[in-house]
Amino acid sequence: MTVPPSELAYVPFVSVENMMRLTHHVGIETFLKELAAFIEADFKRWPDFDKTPRVAAHVPGGVIELMPTADKTLYSFKYVNGHPKNTKTGHQTVTAFGVLSEVLNGYPVLLSEMTVLTALRTAATSALAATYLAPRDAATMAMIGNGAQCEFQAMAFRALCGINTLRLYDIDARATEKASRNLTAQGFEVVACTSAERAVEGADVITTCTADKQYATILTDNMVGAGQHINAIGGDCPGKTELHRDILLRSDIFVEYPEQTRIEGEIQSLDKDHPVTELWQVMRGEAAGRRDQRQVTLFDSVGFAIEDFSALRYVREKVNGTAFSQPLDLLADPDDPRDLFGMLVRSVA
Amino acid sequence: MTVPPSELAYVPFVSVENMMRLTHHVGIETFLKELAAFIEADFKRWPDFDKTPRVAAHVPGGVIELMPTADKTLYSFKYVNGHPKNTKTGHQTVTAFGVLSEVLNGYPVLLSEMTVLTALRTAATSALAATYLAPRDAATMAMIGNGAQCEFQAMAFRALCGINTLRLYDIDARATEKASRNLTAQGFEVVACTSAERAVEGADVITTCTADKQYATILTDNMVGAGQHINAIGGDCPGKTELHRDILLRSDIFVEYPEQTRIEGEIQSLDKDHPVTELWQVMRGEAAGRRDQRQVTLFDSVGFAIEDFSALRYVREKVNGTAFSQPLDLLADPDDPRDLFGMLVRSVA
Repeated sequence: MTVPPSELAYVPFVSVENMMRLTHHVGIETFLKELAAFIEADFKRWPDFDKTPRVAAHVPGGVIELMPTADKTLYSFKYVNGHPKNTKTGHQTVTAFGVLSEVLNGYPVLLSEMTVLTALRTAATSALAATYLAPRDAATMAMIGNGAQCEFQAMAFRALCGINTLRLYDIDARATEKASRNLTAQGFEVVACTSAERAVEGADVITTCTADKQYATILTDNMVGAGQHINAIGGDCPGKTELHRDILLRSDIFVEYPEQTRIEGEIQSLDKDHPVTELWQVMRGEAAGRRDQRQVTLFDSVGFAIEDFSALRYVREKVNGTAFSQPLDLLADPDDPRDLFGMLVRSVA
Repeated sequence: MTVPPSELAYVPFVSVENMMRLTHHVGIETFLKELAAFIEADFKRWPDFDKTPRVAAHVPGGVIELMPTADKTLYSFKYVNGHPKNTKTGHQTVTAFGVLSEVLNGYPVLLSEMTVLTALRTAATSALAATYLAPRDAATMAMIGNGAQCEFQAMAFRALCGINTLRLYDIDARATEKASRNLTAQGFEVVACTSAERAVEGADVITTCTADKQYATILTDNMVGAGQHINAIGGDCPGKTELHRDILLRSDIFVEYPEQTRIEGEIQSLDKDHPVTELWQVMRGEAAGRRDQRQVTLFDSVGFAIEDFSALRYVREKVNGTAFSQPLDLLADPDDPRDLFGMLVRSVA
């Protein structure tokens, strides 16, 4: 090119390597706490957002989704796939990236990897919900499904809820071994269990995070006792659930965005008008969270675009002025905006 | 990091600079012809695609859109904004980028700038449609609206239809001057006109490509004569049209995807069941294009996701094995796909 691209041409890009460096720079638990604070702040101004169920392309072997949202100032979207059989070929079940843009002119201001960031924001959201819904002084969490999301959940529940004892179970014992090793190294008390029934014994919180795209019953009704909080994050598309319907019927159910959760969440098996409480209303004090110690609470989490918006907003603030992002020549920026063709012609060296 | 990211972590990225280098390497008119061939091939297998109207966020000052589509093998989406007042602050009205992914595992295989590429694919689509709809031996095109898209349209109509005489008009004379200068340098016969009425005199094809987001009447009924082909590309969102309704009523109207065009195109002012012909059916020989020399044909183009799919597919093929793309560390790729957390922990140098 005869002249280098102008400032307007560049979009800060956070690679996987830089996201990991940033996470360590901040500290994983501090990152999760700060991220949860951004999510909470955005949930508390829920009516300010344009909201729409994500746009899902159900493709052979999985799903590819776009998750947009916007307030008056910023727009974001995330690209995310979910392909449960990917691990068989050495691929991630979920990969993701996202973009934050200025509403005023539509220009992207951040492009970021979101495979790592989604794991962090999902965990931060779960633990944030639990601060409103889990029994007071919860100390033990059962984790059924010990895949890629498991350890992030554990870190967030310690950072936000003080939970330090984990009871792990996965149908694949190697997944439990992997999670045990990682979490013991992080200072957790870890109990590796040989069945889901064993895992839930004495747990204050039960987290289900399995990845199979089919109706599965990870938890049966007799496994859930009075006072427990269920953090169900694995059921997140049509045909994919984890809990027996009877559990739902005796739980107080909390959701992110009912229009999306009724399609994708555990409650897809209930009547369309089954009462649910929106988490943002609990955070604003407009609806009750946990009311007593015998209540069964269920966070039927499918992940919502505002959580990604908060995560991108947080990352943008963190990387601003640092070396954790690199400039990407993503946007054409002619001297005269109407002269895109002239820019192209003159670009011949 | 202790180890560099693996092959799976990298997504080829085509920057603005590389897109311009690629365009020159191929040659602009050859690029437009080859791109049109990709678009035509995909239009001819239209039923193979998952199709949905684009997802538009109507924000103050403009619109931000996501345009996804997929066949059985590949998935694509484009991010594109439209902010007509952007030029006042030195920004582009339209900026765009896009991603192509493998359906099989959901992994992106190409990230590309699409501001330049959208201008090229829009022009290629317009000229491709004109090969079916414009009068035989068309030699002269009127162009109303001489902004960023104007010259690309001209180049495509010469490459695909042999049109070499242009009659230009814009309410801003400086835009016409800019386009005249650029197009004269490309060897066109250019007539700069002082009104839209003058511009359309003797034209075989009329291209309207203005950018105002409001109901405007760029063409009134008396300006369009028997046998002309109208290529209307500026009306592309609710409330944004360019043609007087009476023109529509006496034209045979061709569209990309009726579900989207009835919301965004010129035909938004007509009854919901006003007959239109889908361009892909013309290309497959299942519907008539131009039938006689007195017919007024109208391509009511709003741009559709399959055109971007074709463009990304073309660019992917062109950059494969060349230096026109660079690897971007966009995807987390742990050794054990379930051990995302372990990868994060071990990433500390």
